[in-house]
Amino acid sequence: MSAARIWTAALIIIGDEILSGRTEDKNIGQIARWLNVQGIRLAEVRVVGDVEDAIVDAVRRLSAAHDYLFTTGGIGPTHDDITVDAIAKALGVGVEHHPDAVAVLTRYYANKGGVNDARLRMARVPAGAELIANRMSGAPGIRHGNIFIMAGVPAITAGMLDALTGSLQGGAPLLSTSIGCWVQESEIADLLREQERVHDGCQIGSYPFFREGRVGCNFIIRSVDPAQLDACSGALSAALDAMGYPPIAGGI
Amino acid sequence: MSAARIWTAALIIIGDEILSGRTEDKNIGQIARWLNVQGIRLAEVRVVGDVEDAIVDAVRRLSAAHDYLFTTGGIGPTHDDITVDAIAKALGVGVEHHPDAVAVLTRYYANKGGVNDARLRMARVPAGAELIANRMSGAPGIRHGNIFIMAGVPAITAGMLDALTGSLQGGAPLLSTSIGCWVQESEIADLLREQERVHDGCQIGSYPFFREGRVGCNFIIRSVDPAQLDACSGALSAALDAMGYPPIAGGI
Repeated sequence: MSAARIWTAALIIIGDEILSGRTEDKNIGQIARWLNVQGIRLAEVRVVGDVEDAIVDAVRRLSAAHDYLFTTGGIGPTHDDITVDAIAKALGVGVEHHPDAVAVLTRYYANKGGVNDARLRMARVPAGAELIANRMSGAPGIRHGNIFIMAGVPAITAGMLDALTGSLQGGAPLLSTSIGCWVQESEIADLLREQERVHDGCQIGSYPFFREGRVGCNFIIRSVDPAQLDACSGALSAALDAMGYPPIAGGI
Repeated sequence: MSAARIWTAALIIIGDEILSGRTEDKNIGQIARWLNVQGIRLAEVRVVGDVEDAIVDAVRRLSAAHDYLFTTGGIGPTHDDITVDAIAKALGVGVEHHPDAVAVLTRYYANKGGVNDARLRMARVPAGAELIANRMSGAPGIRHGNIFIMAGVPAITAGMLDALTGSLQGGAPLLSTSIGCWVQESEIADLLREQERVHDGCQIGSYPFFREGRVGCNFIIRSVDPAQLDACSGALSAALDAMGYPPIAGGI
């Protein structure tokens, strides 16, 4: 399994509201979890402001470095929505109104005052793009090659991810299992290092916490190989138990 | 005011647990808001895994591009905590045990089983670094030049930010004011663009929402100049009111 191809994705979160601290991002988590199920690993995230050069640079680098690139934010109707123009610039293509998007928006706004220039801005795509269905509101997402341009509002992004489910090629999904223990991680650091070394293709993450006045730690073991995952979690649990720290399957 | 120097910072979030979607990041928001108060703008964030090359590359680029670089995560006692080594590599310096950190950890663990090799790992710093006080737990943060190496656990990071408050040089704080309105942003896109154009040094962000079955939008106006901020928010409020959309000061 260790020779299996690993498919990776990057994500660019576009928006001054995240960098100013006004809005807590929810898209990293939901896109990461959705990608895991598709057999694709989120390998890198960048958060950039509503600044064309920053978006263009990030799009060029990350779309070249990964199988897939997702972006969120900046596809609304207002002056601060510059994602489509910046991605078109990064790709070296023009911007055009997608006829299907015009039709979708015309229907969506028919009983809401009709389309206007601002609303039709949301039908603009980098030339050659396809649409991603948006079941929540009018404006669709956009796919251009390996780039997926999604909404910033997490509920709308969730609907767009649903529309894409099963359509992206991925590899074996990354599996994980959790073990919790009332132990300080600094007590068992050598054990973790050794278990990761002897179980090929497994990564062990160690996540300490303070709760109910006690110190504990959760260990997340990840692998694309279910047999290796079972072997590693079994060996780690047995070793923790033997050291006097009874493991709790599933984590604490 | 438009010629005033703007101080910027970047942030690198280090950790597989964010990229896997297991843990929702809380550090972007709290560091962004803390930086605003110091007169420093968070200009860029990257999230990278526990992968040395990715950390080294991000540290080199972002510490050169911004006045300050913050990192969170990867400074614990276990094998997956590689931040200090990666940053030392990026800086081209060695790694050494900081004597004050050894003393802090020795005291902290005195009645918790004493220090061991894993615990003393948390006293390792890039050569030439200073410490950042950690009032929550034993392991200190680390400062090396313009790089600030912070914990991943948000409550511990918060304490380290407190310890740094007032010690970083910044510029005029970025001020902001909010206006809410029960309007579709696509109805008033031209107005927003025009108001931003005529109020030099102001940015207007537009953040639509669906709530209580109604569509609304909050507008955040930002500027380092309080007079410009007042003028812009006053003009925008008056224009919204004149169009039949009564503005709600402070946002909805």
